[in-house]
Amino acid sequence: MITSYETLGGFSLTQFPKGFMSCSVNAGIKDDTLDFTIIFSETRASAAAMFTKNQFCGAPIVVGKDHVKDGYLQAIAVNSKNANVATGEQGLKDAQTMTEAVAAELGISASDVLPSSTGVIGVPLPVEKITAAVPGLKAQLSSHGLEQSAKAIMTTDTYPKFRSRKIGDVTISAMAKGSGMIEPNMATMLSYILTDAAIEPADLQNMLKKAVDVSFNSVSVDGDTSTSDTVAILANGLAGQVDLNEFEAVLTDLCIELAKEIARDGEGATKLVEVQVSGAANDAAAKKIGKSIINSPLVKTAIFGEDPNWGRIMSTIGNAEDAVDTSAVSVSFADVYVFKNGAPTEDKRAELEEYLKTNEVLIKISLGHGTGQATVWGCDLSYDYVKINGEYTT
Amino acid sequence: MITSYETLGGFSLTQFPKGFMSCSVNAGIKDDTLDFTIIFSETRASAAAMFTKNQFCGAPIVVGKDHVKDGYLQAIAVNSKNANVATGEQGLKDAQTMTEAVAAELGISASDVLPSSTGVIGVPLPVEKITAAVPGLKAQLSSHGLEQSAKAIMTTDTYPKFRSRKIGDVTISAMAKGSGMIEPNMATMLSYILTDAAIEPADLQNMLKKAVDVSFNSVSVDGDTSTSDTVAILANGLAGQVDLNEFEAVLTDLCIELAKEIARDGEGATKLVEVQVSGAANDAAAKKIGKSIINSPLVKTAIFGEDPNWGRIMSTIGNAEDAVDTSAVSVSFADVYVFKNGAPTEDKRAELEEYLKTNEVLIKISLGHGTGQATVWGCDLSYDYVKINGEYTT
Repeated sequence: MITSYETLGGFSLTQFPKGFMSCSVNAGIKDDTLDFTIIFSETRASAAAMFTKNQFCGAPIVVGKDHVKDGYLQAIAVNSKNANVATGEQGLKDAQTMTEAVAAELGISASDVLPSSTGVIGVPLPVEKITAAVPGLKAQLSSHGLEQSAKAIMTTDTYPKFRSRKIGDVTISAMAKGSGMIEPNMATMLSYILTDAAIEPADLQNMLKKAVDVSFNSVSVDGDTSTSDTVAILANGLAGQVDLNEFEAVLTDLCIELAKEIARDGEGATKLVEVQVSGAANDAAAKKIGKSIINSPLVKTAIFGEDPNWGRIMSTIGNAEDAVDTSAVSVSFADVYVFKNGAPTEDKRAELEEYLKTNEVLIKISLGHGTGQATVWGCDLSYDYVKINGEYTT
Repeated sequence: MITSYETLGGFSLTQFPKGFMSCSVNAGIKDDTLDFTIIFSETRASAAAMFTKNQFCGAPIVVGKDHVKDGYLQAIAVNSKNANVATGEQGLKDAQTMTEAVAAELGISASDVLPSSTGVIGVPLPVEKITAAVPGLKAQLSSHGLEQSAKAIMTTDTYPKFRSRKIGDVTISAMAKGSGMIEPNMATMLSYILTDAAIEPADLQNMLKKAVDVSFNSVSVDGDTSTSDTVAILANGLAGQVDLNEFEAVLTDLCIELAKEIARDGEGATKLVEVQVSGAANDAAAKKIGKSIINSPLVKTAIFGEDPNWGRIMSTIGNAEDAVDTSAVSVSFADVYVFKNGAPTEDKRAELEEYLKTNEVLIKISLGHGTGQATVWGCDLSYDYVKINGEYTT
């Protein structure tokens, strides 16, 4: 039986997986908000992780890849307000120093700690502030602290993203941050998923990869892949075995929910945009077209302006790398067709203007070509996006 | 000897190529501004053209490709305010009707007329307004009308883009419109180049392709390739032979000047951004990285905000498809280095904030990898971009 506990931003009723504890503090990296958190498992946990493919990846990514490669982790340490990216050799040393300080405090091996940093790029990490904040944190660990961790990892997010689900005795809790997959500056995508199920590392990695592909990897706020993107899952086994098919379904569902929240909370966003593409040559081609629409500044500004300027969708489809049979293409907003089998429908402006007033916009594209399909999520492009990103470091 | 006549927006001192005439009128397609122009050569002219690769290309593109394929044209007919794109079979008929009406009025073959349409997508072209406006236009043709044509083809452009140059007796005049390569809506890129030099169609096509590659194809306002992009060159031979090397140099230079004007006049732009990439594996790889920086909304908003948030440039470089040796990368704003040989320089914030107050921003990237290089142009992303594109058709 699957029970759902949805506590997005709320701090009640949540069940947490057994044996996980955390604490969050202000280390004074930039201001006086929460900027450092430790998540700890009583026992070493099976672990899997996926990281950004950005070649200028952050120093913590280099360290984290090394630490997770044996399939086990026991703690996650995350700071916000500084990404420790493009910081050269010193950055790598700083990431190791942070990891070692946390390991020493928790009495575990440094190679069982996954470090993450998120925030501004190219500024040296004030690691001495972190090492000064670590002593004594072990005593503050609490099994009710996980939602606080979801808050400590926030940057330009406007609310914490945290959800829990039960599968029999097993609990899965997942948190994410990010106002986009995008670039680093306070918009890095981080997600940590914790479960007390007993699952082998190889199974975890396999399920995580499939879940991420249809969730986080299907979201785009502005098309930039961050230098710090990290998704990690820890399974400490304290609640015993679980049906893997059922677990994978719940894991995928949780990841999709958090991915949609990231798009909905995209920088400056006023609307969540979902694009469903069907009839492509294959799923990858469908996803590519969906992403190009989600990333088009012209489509995004039109949706912000609640302007049913659907010609911009046609142009974006026409720019697809793969061949498109334009005479077979159909496009609708929810169920209102604007273009059917290669020709425009009668003018639906009034109906569309009404539809675009909602805060969730669904665009469906049928290419009439094959069986490939994909669903992707994004958001509109508003004045506030320009404001947030034009004034970020000044 | 090359003499330059720069008349960007000005209406004086310009020399026009012999035998070209034009007239511009309001056909009432949307409002009462100039929306239709005819450019006519006394004699059939050698011609070459390049068109958008968008698969949802406009109906006039289909007709124009067919008309230019024999290497000769005698007239260009352009309407603004409607792109005649995604208009199905009727759109194609409308483009042919417009072409035939112009040919009949001018007493030439319809297959010597290049049609262009620019404006909103997916709305049927009110072709009856155009055919009603055409009769009598031949009598209004004037050899001083070319700058007026540059005005009639404008959409969201804030000023007409027109330049002329002399090479001995030969004159080249070039006009362009477009607040981006981008999407259709009033932002399509169109450029017409007229010369009285005697040049074979094959030579014209060859020179045009090379010139377009380093000029118009190196500009991006928002990364969308329009459904209507067209560049055409007509050479009627009335001024006789010209040195082809000299001609190609001037043609390339003119195209680069107009391309930069398009970026400078990008929708909502407050700054022209030039990105010079060197040290790439090859020129194509350099151009790809340059374009990704010019198209990054995070880089563009930071430049708008005059915020020296150069970490965003590093992240964009790191997302390059081709392998990047991050330890060999250097980045500077003009001559102020922020990142040198893989490590950040000392903090240059004050100097950079001063530099970013200018209205032309130069970013230089050295990849330290090979000899490939490219220069690309774009603009910042401002509140006005959102305003222009959020309110376009409503």
